[in-house]
Amino acid sequence: MKDRIIKAACELFWRYGIKSVTMDDIAKELGISKRTIYQHYADKEAILALVIEEQINSQKCEMEKLDEQAANPIEQMMYASQQMRDTLSDMSPTLLYDLKKYYPAAWELFQTYKHEFILKSIRDNLVQGIELGLYRPDIDIEVLCVLRVEQVVMAFDPTLFPSKKFEMMHVQMQFLLHFLRGVLSEKGFEYYNTIKDKTEFEINTHEK
Amino acid sequence: MKDRIIKAACELFWRYGIKSVTMDDIAKELGISKRTIYQHYADKEAILALVIEEQINSQKCEMEKLDEQAANPIEQMMYASQQMRDTLSDMSPTLLYDLKKYYPAAWELFQTYKHEFILKSIRDNLVQGIELGLYRPDIDIEVLCVLRVEQVVMAFDPTLFPSKKFEMMHVQMQFLLHFLRGVLSEKGFEYYNTIKDKTEFEINTHEK
Repeated sequence: MKDRIIKAACELFWRYGIKSVTMDDIAKELGISKRTIYQHYADKEAILALVIEEQINSQKCEMEKLDEQAANPIEQMMYASQQMRDTLSDMSPTLLYDLKKYYPAAWELFQTYKHEFILKSIRDNLVQGIELGLYRPDIDIEVLCVLRVEQVVMAFDPTLFPSKKFEMMHVQMQFLLHFLRGVLSEKGFEYYNTIKDKTEFEINTHEK
Repeated sequence: MKDRIIKAACELFWRYGIKSVTMDDIAKELGISKRTIYQHYADKEAILALVIEEQINSQKCEMEKLDEQAANPIEQMMYASQQMRDTLSDMSPTLLYDLKKYYPAAWELFQTYKHEFILKSIRDNLVQGIELGLYRPDIDIEVLCVLRVEQVVMAFDPTLFPSKKFEMMHVQMQFLLHFLRGVLSEKGFEYYNTIKDKTEFEINTHEK
């Protein structure tokens, strides 16, 4: 039952954000009473913390799998973006903003993950890309790591990219391709040109 | 006297941020009494609004001058970054954060400027670059305009780039060069390669 509650809550948060999902909604989704939920979890915040932890673990796992499949850092970055596209395409645009505004403890968890795991993963990618001569040697890795993470977060910001005017995944893809081109060396470009059409095709066929 | 007060306040704000500069400090800087200041301005906020307005006007003027001098959009972007470097190099890192946190009305003024003038200037640059074949035709101008403006703001964010670890102008230059490379077409690259060494040399000689 504990796992089922987490799974149902996760799906509801993902689709509708956090603020607007109540304990009643979670109970209704599972066809159980609110009392049953309270037997396992003190409040929505307790559920939220576990939901985030699980999401983070499954994302880590996915990313590690992709890293193994990618032949080089350029492919790795493109795979990661496709994974992001798949993962985030049905995410409520208010989710991260709910988190930041109303659930500071859960936001802190996400921030820690962002800083430790994602930053490290981007850093490794940049280091390896430079070593292989695919990225420019004159980029400042620390500065560009932060830029890349913040770009991903920025694309969710409804004050910068209102959903009426911008499709979030389109913004993410523009950022990703722009970021990648910005770090490529000449050798990197030659390689990128041989694979980009394939990827763009794949991206387009996934377009909603 | 009114102008002298604005000028002195501007210099103090620039060097020390806004929060830590008092009416006493401004009076002392000018060797006048606080009473004299209050004869002209109701409070620090009134002075701040004028300081910002004047800064914005002088920056607009500088940017228009540079636009006329630049031979093409790539040069224009590089000139603009050098101007930014000159303007911002002695700016207190807390200035924008003081503004946002403690002076919402003044921050609003700056936001309006950012959205109307800077966004337009970047948009014009991107449109022209694409027309001339120097930038990729597949960039989304609206998305990348926002990215560029936010990059400039992001480099000031002490929570992302603490001043102990990062030199703000170095972050700005990394962002600028990365942004520019990210939008260049192949033709743009060829041109960029002919002028980048000159600019990098100039950037290095200006390094603190």
